[in-house]
Amino acid sequence: MSQNAIPNVLADRYASGPMKDIWSAQGKVILERQLWIAVLKAQQELGLPLPDGVVEAYEAVIDQVNLASIDERERITRHDVKARIEEFCDLAGHEHIHKGMTSRDLTENVEQLQVYQSLQLVRLRAIALLKRMAELAGEHSGLVITARTHNVAAQPSTLGKRIAMFGQDLLLALRRLEDLIAAYPVRGIKGAVGTQLDQLTLFDGDQSKVDSLEEKVMTHLGLPRRLDNVGQVYPRSLDFEVVSALVQLAAGPSSFCKTLRIMAGHELASEGFAKGQVGSSAMPHKMNSRSCERVNGFHAILKGHLCMGAELAGDQWNEGDVSCSVVRRVMLPDAFFAFDGLCETFHTLLNQFQAFPAVIARENRHYFPFLATTTLLMEAVRAGAGREEAHEAIKEHAVATVLDLRGGELDQNNLAERLAEDGRLGLNLDQIQSIIDNAAALSGAAAGQVQQFQSEVSDWQERYPQANSVQPGHIL
Amino acid sequence: MSQNAIPNVLADRYASGPMKDIWSAQGKVILERQLWIAVLKAQQELGLPLPDGVVEAYEAVIDQVNLASIDERERITRHDVKARIEEFCDLAGHEHIHKGMTSRDLTENVEQLQVYQSLQLVRLRAIALLKRMAELAGEHSGLVITARTHNVAAQPSTLGKRIAMFGQDLLLALRRLEDLIAAYPVRGIKGAVGTQLDQLTLFDGDQSKVDSLEEKVMTHLGLPRRLDNVGQVYPRSLDFEVVSALVQLAAGPSSFCKTLRIMAGHELASEGFAKGQVGSSAMPHKMNSRSCERVNGFHAILKGHLCMGAELAGDQWNEGDVSCSVVRRVMLPDAFFAFDGLCETFHTLLNQFQAFPAVIARENRHYFPFLATTTLLMEAVRAGAGREEAHEAIKEHAVATVLDLRGGELDQNNLAERLAEDGRLGLNLDQIQSIIDNAAALSGAAAGQVQQFQSEVSDWQERYPQANSVQPGHIL
Amino acid sequence: MSQNAIPNVLADRYASGPMKDIWSAQGKVILERQLWIAVLKAQQELGLPLPDGVVEAYEAVIDQVNLASIDERERITRHDVKARIEEFCDLAGHEHIHKGMTSRDLTENVEQLQVYQSLQLVRLRAIALLKRMAELAGEHSGLVITARTHNVAAQPSTLGKRIAMFGQDLLLALRRLEDLIAAYPVRGIKGAVGTQLDQLTLFDGDQSKVDSLEEKVMTHLGLPRRLDNVGQVYPRSLDFEVVSALVQLAAGPSSFCKTLRIMAGHELASEGFAKGQVGSSAMPHKMNSRSCERVNGFHAILKGHLCMGAELAGDQWNEGDVSCSVVRRVMLPDAFFAFDGLCETFHTLLNQFQAFPAVIARENRHYFPFLATTTLLMEAVRAGAGREEAHEAIKEHAVATVLDLRGGELDQNNLAERLAEDGRLGLNLDQIQSIIDNAAALSGAAAGQVQQFQSEVSDWQERYPQANSVQPGHIL
Amino acid sequence: MSQNAIPNVLADRYASGPMKDIWSAQGKVILERQLWIAVLKAQQELGLPLPDGVVEAYEAVIDQVNLASIDERERITRHDVKARIEEFCDLAGHEHIHKGMTSRDLTENVEQLQVYQSLQLVRLRAIALLKRMAELAGEHSGLVITARTHNVAAQPSTLGKRIAMFGQDLLLALRRLEDLIAAYPVRGIKGAVGTQLDQLTLFDGDQSKVDSLEEKVMTHLGLPRRLDNVGQVYPRSLDFEVVSALVQLAAGPSSFCKTLRIMAGHELASEGFAKGQVGSSAMPHKMNSRSCERVNGFHAILKGHLCMGAELAGDQWNEGDVSCSVVRRVMLPDAFFAFDGLCETFHTLLNQFQAFPAVIARENRHYFPFLATTTLLMEAVRAGAGREEAHEAIKEHAVATVLDLRGGELDQNNLAERLAEDGRLGLNLDQIQSIIDNAAALSGAAAGQVQQFQSEVSDWQERYPQANSVQPGHIL
Repeated sequence: MSQNAIPNVLADRYASGPMKDIWSAQGKVILERQLWIAVLKAQQELGLPLPDGVVEAYEAVIDQVNLASIDERERITRHDVKARIEEFCDLAGHEHIHKGMTSRDLTENVEQLQVYQSLQLVRLRAIALLKRMAELAGEHSGLVITARTHNVAAQPSTLGKRIAMFGQDLLLALRRLEDLIAAYPVRGIKGAVGTQLDQLTLFDGDQSKVDSLEEKVMTHLGLPRRLDNVGQVYPRSLDFEVVSALVQLAAGPSSFCKTLRIMAGHELASEGFAKGQVGSSAMPHKMNSRSCERVNGFHAILKGHLCMGAELAGDQWNEGDVSCSVVRRVMLPDAFFAFDGLCETFHTLLNQFQAFPAVIARENRHYFPFLATTTLLMEAVRAGAGREEAHEAIKEHAVATVLDLRGGELDQNNLAERLAEDGRLGLNLDQIQSIIDNAAALSGAAAGQVQQFQSEVSDWQERYPQANSVQPGHIL
Repeated sequence: MSQNAIPNVLADRYASGPMKDIWSAQGKVILERQLWIAVLKAQQELGLPLPDGVVEAYEAVIDQVNLASIDERERITRHDVKARIEEFCDLAGHEHIHKGMTSRDLTENVEQLQVYQSLQLVRLRAIALLKRMAELAGEHSGLVITARTHNVAAQPSTLGKRIAMFGQDLLLALRRLEDLIAAYPVRGIKGAVGTQLDQLTLFDGDQSKVDSLEEKVMTHLGLPRRLDNVGQVYPRSLDFEVVSALVQLAAGPSSFCKTLRIMAGHELASEGFAKGQVGSSAMPHKMNSRSCERVNGFHAILKGHLCMGAELAGDQWNEGDVSCSVVRRVMLPDAFFAFDGLCETFHTLLNQFQAFPAVIARENRHYFPFLATTTLLMEAVRAGAGREEAHEAIKEHAVATVLDLRGGELDQNNLAERLAEDGRLGLNLDQIQSIIDNAAALSGAAAGQVQQFQSEVSDWQERYPQANSVQPGHIL
Repeated sequence: MSQNAIPNVLADRYASGPMKDIWSAQGKVILERQLWIAVLKAQQELGLPLPDGVVEAYEAVIDQVNLASIDERERITRHDVKARIEEFCDLAGHEHIHKGMTSRDLTENVEQLQVYQSLQLVRLRAIALLKRMAELAGEHSGLVITARTHNVAAQPSTLGKRIAMFGQDLLLALRRLEDLIAAYPVRGIKGAVGTQLDQLTLFDGDQSKVDSLEEKVMTHLGLPRRLDNVGQVYPRSLDFEVVSALVQLAAGPSSFCKTLRIMAGHELASEGFAKGQVGSSAMPHKMNSRSCERVNGFHAILKGHLCMGAELAGDQWNEGDVSCSVVRRVMLPDAFFAFDGLCETFHTLLNQFQAFPAVIARENRHYFPFLATTTLLMEAVRAGAGREEAHEAIKEHAVATVLDLRGGELDQNNLAERLAEDGRLGLNLDQIQSIIDNAAALSGAAAGQVQQFQSEVSDWQERYPQANSVQPGHIL
Repeated sequence: MSQNAIPNVLADRYASGPMKDIWSAQGKVILERQLWIAVLKAQQELGLPLPDGVVEAYEAVIDQVNLASIDERERITRHDVKARIEEFCDLAGHEHIHKGMTSRDLTENVEQLQVYQSLQLVRLRAIALLKRMAELAGEHSGLVITARTHNVAAQPSTLGKRIAMFGQDLLLALRRLEDLIAAYPVRGIKGAVGTQLDQLTLFDGDQSKVDSLEEKVMTHLGLPRRLDNVGQVYPRSLDFEVVSALVQLAAGPSSFCKTLRIMAGHELASEGFAKGQVGSSAMPHKMNSRSCERVNGFHAILKGHLCMGAELAGDQWNEGDVSCSVVRRVMLPDAFFAFDGLCETFHTLLNQFQAFPAVIARENRHYFPFLATTTLLMEAVRAGAGREEAHEAIKEHAVATVLDLRGGELDQNNLAERLAEDGRLGLNLDQIQSIIDNAAALSGAAAGQVQQFQSEVSDWQERYPQANSVQPGHIL
């Protein structure tokens, strides 16, 4: 790239090779040429006359992509498709492609193919993330943590369960993606206003031949479904649906990362670090959650693309126009690049994820006496204490302990000692401490829930085994 | 409503009764009480002790909803659920509900039930719109129009096909809605951090009883699926998915309405008018597309709700908090009210839709000579003219005619006469005019496409026959 | 309010009385009637004939607002302004108002007046928030904290400075609001397409009288500026600007609240609590940052309104239509209610804000040995140690200490002891500890920055002394 | 650019050279180096020791920008600023830059400089657009058109006034831009958490030297204002304000373009065309509003960037992090590129704008009989007719004429003839036709409003005369 050129920052810094391949200018030119040749062949097979050697002449130059030359032509014609037709025809020495086609017969289908291929890649990446989350959930299935609501200690859970919880979010989005891919319909060869007039004219009004042509071309594209009623373009609400699926897919990773940023603030866990990476030369111990923050950044970007997509849906006049053109040029590749960059980043941090059990245990020791109060009350009553009196005693000591800890009178939670010394409960320190220690085990159904998560992920892995080999590249 | 109270404008002016019933404050209080009683009964059935008469005492007061009293309690507790528990218990004279439950065990499930019921209502409304669009498409299947791209005459189509094209957009969104409803999962009774700790404690750790409890309650709600791994709340990406489905459903109607506003500007068609309605007293003939404009307005509102939904997805910290609370209080009902208002408005205008075939024919007469030039060229060549010479002649006269029409030298398109007078084509006026008149029929596959649309809509009607009786109320 | 009516949740639960007064239906009807009478009087003063007693007849019934009757009329006319004209005229027994006026001559100006009054109220509220922030910043100006970047300990700062930092954000937004209010222009009495035709006709083409009329009416409204070139409506980009100013104003409070939620998670500070409020009955010590979370929720809502506003700007066809109508009915009041609710909530939590210096000191003790390493290195070199050797020693011990703390080998930071025992630095424990303790003072320019903040806020208070008495009501 | 690289489509296809220069990677590296050198010199001037020749060594290599080498370093350090420091130091053979600076002391200020320069460029472009609009408004000040509300004929206006109306929208946004530029504050050299600790340490706690350093550096940047209280970063609400100003600036052009697309559909006006450009080879007369559509597309893109900006504002934790980093890398340049592309496109179409007075006159003839009915009524009454009878007659004939025109019974409006034949009005055809013809002049205050617009634009031109020479490049 020239030093002065402005690269696409999402592609250049963050997206993976496979995703960039789908959306490169060169790749798109080749996809278009393949479509033209597919149409040409189909027309020939269906009886349209074509001189010998024409198909071969086009095929021979399919890979000769000179973007500068095409740009030069567009500067004159102010029409991008016309520029690319001229280039291809000049290279081949013939003028037979694009017969009975309008620009959108070309571009709509090729762009939908790019979208469809990208969605399939996204599916693999999402499954690969889930695989890694399921592994982590399994590894930490027994690691009891202080679960938080309102960012405040609430009840025990396990780290595995917390990871599975964010995995659940991603699973929901994956289900939706699956529905979308299964139903994704392509516009087809429908002509200037969607009535297939030009192809019908070419085939003397023979609708069956026109249907056959479209089917052959769709087979070429590898797209399973077609739309029946379109204008010059397909409904842009479909692009909106695509981008909104990406936003949804990003939600689970994004929530995971916000939570990990908070956990890192307590030194409970870390996103891990690559070799050679430093926070600042002055503070080598400072380990910043930069990847997590980046994941959250990608989510913000995707929401911007969602807004662009929402602008297009429901703003289609008559049989169509190009007010969506510049928007889709930006939104479609960039949304996929952003999501792909998110996957690269999130997958990397999942690979490097570290929990610090000793710090987690320290936090648990601090909070579990409070979290055990319900059980302590129950046991005190069982041991003979009056419920109201015991409840009052617990409340008094719990609040006093909190205040002393916050006021600096106390450095470590001594609620157990206080309660043992108060006769109203009738429990000694050993009994109390044993209940508190047991609270660590009060993570309820967490273990079974993790298994359930692993089992669902496993089903997806079986359906798409290629996902097992997906790994992120080296991230910046 | 008190004169000084501020009503919800979407509910008050635009939404239908059934949608308002789902979201009314009174209705929600009753849904909550039903859930509490369902849990109470399930707990009793599964062996938890309960004094005789308690269930009956609660059931007896279920409909005694005093919102002012509840508000008063909330002002003291600053906790809405606590306020509603106290109210219900005071009415019943017992304190047995909400056992082993956290606030979100109540509110999440009840709100999801409201969402689920609303989605089902939306499905019926969408099918009812499609039914009406299919009828209109059929009625106007033979009405040839000048289809436009870039808002400029492009090729002939039919009005029926144009309607079917916007119907296709809505069909895509309906398919997605169907997928969403089929998969919509509910949070269930999962406790403060999702581990079911409190219910497990109630049932002495018996997981099978806890599962059974949840199942019984879900059956009560009529919700088919449950989530496994949640925190205090379910993933808000699910709310985002719901709102984005509504935005997508609004796209087809919105594009239809923009197009109809443009058509009305040419007097080709009109949204029709109710009796007693006037544009302005000074201009009784002025018929404004106010309902179309309103549909576009609803779409804009829904995009705002989408943004709110996107804010919540991916911003969940730890096991949850209430940063989403005020957002969901606004977004969930309002998005459904807005979409419902859109349906009321759009359905009404579909019912009153008028086409003006004479004006359409006048437009066709103006443009078809231009639209027929391709055919004229083909026929001239067939009749013996040289292709290049004929092409040049047509281009000359077409451009000259346009310029004369725009320059005021000409009031009516006389391209046919010009071409007849030019010897280069070798076609006389009758031949030319006949080709142009035939252009009117060149709507290609439009008729078949309309049938295809009708057939798809018909399938939906068969699956959901209740949609056939859905009609809009009287709109403002 | 009837039990089944759906209230505006933002107004009903969160907004203040003064803001609701501006936007109530009854209030708006009265504003409209005042405008009609102002026009009537101005027309009379400028020479238009009017029977005696007409103005008085209208003035006598100005407060007789019957919304139900107006709604009933609108149901027939399907035109809201017409309904309100009829109602007012029937009450007064005359038909003289709205002469030479189009609907938008009424509604645009009245709505802009509502916006203008709301912006003025917003300004007072923002200054009141800043006043409270400046007080808090002053109170905590000397309280040294461990400032965090990437949510990880970075350098010392003070709590006062942190508060001033978020105050700076709000100050920026306030400056912008001030610019907006100063420049806010009103549409005026411009007629159906903005050419003032009807008023010119009334005044026999006398432009100076029409100008005079407009000026008199604007004086009535209390609006300082007028637009020159409008259509039926004013540019909706102005509404967008208003809402985007609110979004910007919400940013500082929102960031403050996210940070306070994180601080509360470390028990460093708290939003405080009202009497009678509980987190949960089971855990009386649990103090949730519910108000902070709500502030963040309001910000999310405002972003949704921003999207609605962005939909309207740049989508104006010809001289105008009502596609913006339903959007503005929702967006304008709701955005102000949301921002007002944010102020109520944020002001309340600022009033109740609590810092816990003992916990802050504990955190400082944990992190300051790391934060002091730069100074330690400098002092070691000054005392004769080799720079490279000392740097290596510090790095070794710092990293080892972190690892031991995270690994559980260590409960308290002992970096000072380690460094004292290592001969390479040539510093004893007293020297080291003294440097670390001094680190607590290394909050740089923080104190001066707080003063600078207080001074700026003070300037605003002097300009708008009414802000000093603004206080929030009792929040839910 | 390599064939496989993914370019930034907004920069590559649409933005102007000056805007790309501000944001190119190479340009930014040089800006950073200039800042480093400015800091170095200021530190030296303020007494910090620096060996001879160091500044010169850095200055000598300032233009040696090797992006590939920098990228390679970043891949190792995973820290972009560190990579650029190393590169510059290796080139210069010294390690003296970035002393007492944190990464954000560098990047924040440089990025704000880019924003500030871009805003200044935007101001010139906006004034240049207004200049062209004012010229067009003047040229067409006397061209009477049928103004439309609800896209339906409403009253006469002039084309000049319509253009001025959209210009008014842009003027409002320009005023806001001016306020923003005047107030735009830069972060300054504030250190890791905003307390200036490192610079204070360098200068042994001498605050006046630190202030002086910052002032010298700001002078270098050419930025007039500084923030007092920041953390690691400046408030991102400022970025939001910048992007929202661009969205607002785009509103007027966008509405103009939507209206022109509608006008082109009636052949009343056209965006004009460049040589060599064709709509489609088959239809050379087809002139598509592609540039208008593109302007609308750019507006949609900007709204997406606005959403990204709204994500950052109010989501700042503690003293800052890099969750905004990837978002700002995309949003800031792309929003400026998009707006710049909009200016290129909109300016071009303003230059080529064509009105078709003959078609406009034809439309007027069609609608003015209806638009004149108010005047006809007045004149009939003046001539002796009864008001009610005359009103009834007019209404009857107006509605009948509309119905006949729509029903095809009539091709040309004959309302004048009908009224002349009806004795109830007492006006003959000449009288009626004369009133209708005069209606053409009933554009009210339009002419004066255009002058007012021209005068305001002229003021801006005088303040910023450089805007007069701004012209678009050749657009695709």
